[in-house]
Amino acid sequence: MFLVGGAGLIATERGFPQAEFEARCARVQTKMAQAGLSALLLSSEPEVRYFTGYLTRFWESPTRPWFLIVPVSGKPIAVIPSIGATLMGQTWVDDIRTWTAPDLADDGVSLLAETLRNVVADGDQIGVPDGHETHLRMPLADLERVRSDIGQRRIIGDSGILRALRMVKSPAEIAKIETACTIAGRAFARVPEIAREGAPLDEVYRRFQMLCLEEGADWVAYLAGGAEQGGYGDVISPATRTPLAAGDVLMLDTGVVWDGYFSDFDRNWSVGPASQSVSDAHAQLIDATSAAFEIARPGTTAAELFYAMNAIVAGEVGGTDAGRLGHGLGMSLTEWPSLIAMDHTVLETGMVLTLEPGVAIGDKIMVHEEDIVITDTGARFLSPKADREVPEL
Amino acid sequence: MFLVGGAGLIATERGFPQAEFEARCARVQTKMAQAGLSALLLSSEPEVRYFTGYLTRFWESPTRPWFLIVPVSGKPIAVIPSIGATLMGQTWVDDIRTWTAPDLADDGVSLLAETLRNVVADGDQIGVPDGHETHLRMPLADLERVRSDIGQRRIIGDSGILRALRMVKSPAEIAKIETACTIAGRAFARVPEIAREGAPLDEVYRRFQMLCLEEGADWVAYLAGGAEQGGYGDVISPATRTPLAAGDVLMLDTGVVWDGYFSDFDRNWSVGPASQSVSDAHAQLIDATSAAFEIARPGTTAAELFYAMNAIVAGEVGGTDAGRLGHGLGMSLTEWPSLIAMDHTVLETGMVLTLEPGVAIGDKIMVHEEDIVITDTGARFLSPKADREVPEL
Repeated sequence: MFLVGGAGLIATERGFPQAEFEARCARVQTKMAQAGLSALLLSSEPEVRYFTGYLTRFWESPTRPWFLIVPVSGKPIAVIPSIGATLMGQTWVDDIRTWTAPDLADDGVSLLAETLRNVVADGDQIGVPDGHETHLRMPLADLERVRSDIGQRRIIGDSGILRALRMVKSPAEIAKIETACTIAGRAFARVPEIAREGAPLDEVYRRFQMLCLEEGADWVAYLAGGAEQGGYGDVISPATRTPLAAGDVLMLDTGVVWDGYFSDFDRNWSVGPASQSVSDAHAQLIDATSAAFEIARPGTTAAELFYAMNAIVAGEVGGTDAGRLGHGLGMSLTEWPSLIAMDHTVLETGMVLTLEPGVAIGDKIMVHEEDIVITDTGARFLSPKADREVPEL
Repeated sequence: MFLVGGAGLIATERGFPQAEFEARCARVQTKMAQAGLSALLLSSEPEVRYFTGYLTRFWESPTRPWFLIVPVSGKPIAVIPSIGATLMGQTWVDDIRTWTAPDLADDGVSLLAETLRNVVADGDQIGVPDGHETHLRMPLADLERVRSDIGQRRIIGDSGILRALRMVKSPAEIAKIETACTIAGRAFARVPEIAREGAPLDEVYRRFQMLCLEEGADWVAYLAGGAEQGGYGDVISPATRTPLAAGDVLMLDTGVVWDGYFSDFDRNWSVGPASQSVSDAHAQLIDATSAAFEIARPGTTAAELFYAMNAIVAGEVGGTDAGRLGHGLGMSLTEWPSLIAMDHTVLETGMVLTLEPGVAIGDKIMVHEEDIVITDTGARFLSPKADREVPEL
């Protein structure tokens, strides 16, 4: 038996006022009109939730497709399996069309096509997110059936409209991300309770997730990390049973969810005293995040944050295989933009980013990650910024 | 501080011997040859893992696409972001081609197209899963670019080959599912420790996930449920803060993961003494699962299991909006087949199914779920079968 201490410390209200969804719709509809789109057809969890508030872990089941149509004017229309009708009925959406799914012969295809024919004039264009970090969550064969059943209406790309919109978070969204970060920060602070020399890594993973829940996470959507001598081999592996040993560097990288919004940051510990190379690498990683933080403000680009960190971590020790040094964060563990040389996204107030530099130490790596939000005058840490000195277990 | 008691009780070995992957490849390659496919192109987590053993929670990040090509002869070829190279290098796959992702201009598209041109003769066919319960996990625009960059090779549906293969589990897969079920069963047995009159439902959810972890789950991929007077409104909602009250029926439905395999079953409790209608409904649900279990054996169809349960639950009290009365289970929370009237899948030894009848009680519902495996002579419960009497909290 143990006590759950976190529930009383949650900082923000659940859900959003209806005005939040009305504002999101108004913004996307302005952009749709400019792009010549009569409707958006959405199918993935964050896309549907962004315009409705429809929050459920049921998306874990890959069985049923779910659709939301956002017309160029008016409220969104849900075309969903009947199992979701009750929950969708609690959102601000009032046009909810259901079918009994799964239906092996017609799993929402004809209902979706009929709704598109109702909402979109023949010959008009329907946008679907088709760019980087998107996919269409429905069977490919069914997409072709819808296409052949909507007359001269054309399904085309959304020109990045949704990306542009979702990258900039509202104050209410930022508060939820900050709550998630606060919860994860409290769990990280308690890692010395569960991790010490001799503890099997898989038990550390399990008990760390328990700490996240105890501190108030709704669920722990992501945990990865590593623990090896003087660094780790990669940052995405599941836990082994190997016990922590003196000289290991333990890293835990978690994405906890609070009211549908994510944290995403990590922490490193040295098991026993840290070697000079581990101490130096950790200080270098913190310096890199500080360098990016210093220049983060509206007008700076994603690429400039990358260069600020890369100048520090790609010196004598070199980089890693991660492919980027940070990314957007919000309704998903990772979102646009990417902190890479080729991403010239201009930062705006309300963007939430992770700063995630990595260094190589011989054949091992170390990675550090913090979460920040862009403000009118600069940036603010949402995660409790780590010290330069690597903590010792 | 609390103790983790589950780690010592895990029943099966992690991972699979290489022969398991060789056998999966041999089976799929026989079917591919029959279907005239020179390669399969796979992009989703279970598809890639099925042929490689590549297990990571990193799929939670929607940013990067991942590809596996299974040629009609020879070993699979991984075309993946460089961040996954180290972990994929620990599998039996030895042809691992990487790019530095994310790449805004070419996120694996040309590497994938080049690999397909290497592996598949011009004019030949490449299969992708495109039927029920599938989706292609890559940007739609990139699929079109791949199509236009592979000459006369055609990307077509896989004719359900992967569905047929994955529905029948090996003994090693069944052991992992049974371990997950055992862990969830131990957590369910401890619910009286955390749930009683006055406990807020969101705290029950949080603490139940902690119990699952404490009992040995790698992670808790799914938890939903409900708690209302005399039943609940639906089975997919997130938790409210409402305290449990006498007369509530609490239901928790969880999918815990052990070594990449899922459990998926639920339990109901009455807060205080159960009303007659709740008692009757619970007994009816157990009787329905028993009726399906009795006839479950090789040669029975999915539809026959549906009818066996539906005859009991669709009597005077009627059904629910769930759309089916059970489904396959394995690498995902839900898999083919569906226990519905129109699914005539013939059961085979090694299929793992959930039996999930539901009943309406006035404007509320109750749902019960168990997990079974089809054996040569009948079926066996993987979840610890619940009693007819609804337990009281």
